[in-house]
Amino acid sequence: MDIFPAPLERLIRDLSRLPGVGSKSATRMALYILNSNRELADSLAKSLVQVKDEIKFCSICFNFTDTDPCAVCRDTNRSERVICVVEGPGDQLAIEETGVFKGKYHVLHGVLSPLDGIGPENLKIGELISRCNSGDVEEVILAINPTTQGEATSSYLADILLKKNIKVTRIALGVPVGGDLKYMDYMTLKHSLNSRTLV
Amino acid sequence: MDIFPAPLERLIRDLSRLPGVGSKSATRMALYILNSNRELADSLAKSLVQVKDEIKFCSICFNFTDTDPCAVCRDTNRSERVICVVEGPGDQLAIEETGVFKGKYHVLHGVLSPLDGIGPENLKIGELISRCNSGDVEEVILAINPTTQGEATSSYLADILLKKNIKVTRIALGVPVGGDLKYMDYMTLKHSLNSRTLV
Repeated sequence: MDIFPAPLERLIRDLSRLPGVGSKSATRMALYILNSNRELADSLAKSLVQVKDEIKFCSICFNFTDTDPCAVCRDTNRSERVICVVEGPGDQLAIEETGVFKGKYHVLHGVLSPLDGIGPENLKIGELISRCNSGDVEEVILAINPTTQGEATSSYLADILLKKNIKVTRIALGVPVGGDLKYMDYMTLKHSLNSRTLV
Repeated sequence: MDIFPAPLERLIRDLSRLPGVGSKSATRMALYILNSNRELADSLAKSLVQVKDEIKFCSICFNFTDTDPCAVCRDTNRSERVICVVEGPGDQLAIEETGVFKGKYHVLHGVLSPLDGIGPENLKIGELISRCNSGDVEEVILAINPTTQGEATSSYLADILLKKNIKVTRIALGVPVGGDLKYMDYMTLKHSLNSRTLV
């Protein structure tokens, strides 16, 4: 039996469809929304509909955007010569927040995963290669997450791009700044030792 | 500078107004919503508006309801003689989930907190006393959260109700089932020892 009235149960069920939200947090959020003034619920409802109405993919880098091309692709202060390849829009955000990268991006929208039926044609790989064919691109930075499938995707891309005489680099892997060696996994530590740099 | 397009930033900002949602989880949720089919966003937007439109307070127990009186207050299989007093609707839910309580509830919507300017007139205390004045109530179970302010509220209510010759009980405090004594705080352990029961 549902304990809460139907509209509240419905909101809890919908909220718990969000990632990282279980039924307890969904209940907490729903009760908070009920106790808050009407503006919160209305504003959130409006944002949800707007985001679906107004956000599309940038036709150049395939990041989410409300203008096409996106703000980053239009920015003439950013170099066209370096493209940073990421898995998803969240990864692009993380890099952008560091403020150190001044080139353009390319969002793959996933990684190769043959077991899940995801091949190169399901990702924005063809589009990346077209961009690189233009002749302006000097370097491609592979910033794909270092998972098993991400690594495979990086090698796949590196193979193709190196044949076009483009410089291909990848972000450094190792112990995170502030990390603790005794809690680090074997693979990271091994990589960290093998990729040691001169001081 | 906002990195994401405006509608997405707006959704992230609105989501992070929810309790327990920081900007990272809000970003994760917003990107998930963008990647999901339109039905999720629409359904959640609709639930948000409906919950505000259709949910009101039960005029008897002051729990949230879409019918007045609420389902629990209308249920004739539940005893009118025992009222369980809770701080908020979430607490009522937790008790209801145990399935052991077959009486009625009364939701205070907060606890006394003189420093925040919350006195008896800001809570549903007058309404509780009116219910107890009807003569049908034999026992009031105080199930207010055992915080400092909750304890003060419990004592305040106990003082009033005892004068009306109503049996006043409170839920047992102690070490939670499955709990570990070495991680228990001093106050709980002290209470647990003082309130020990015969086996």
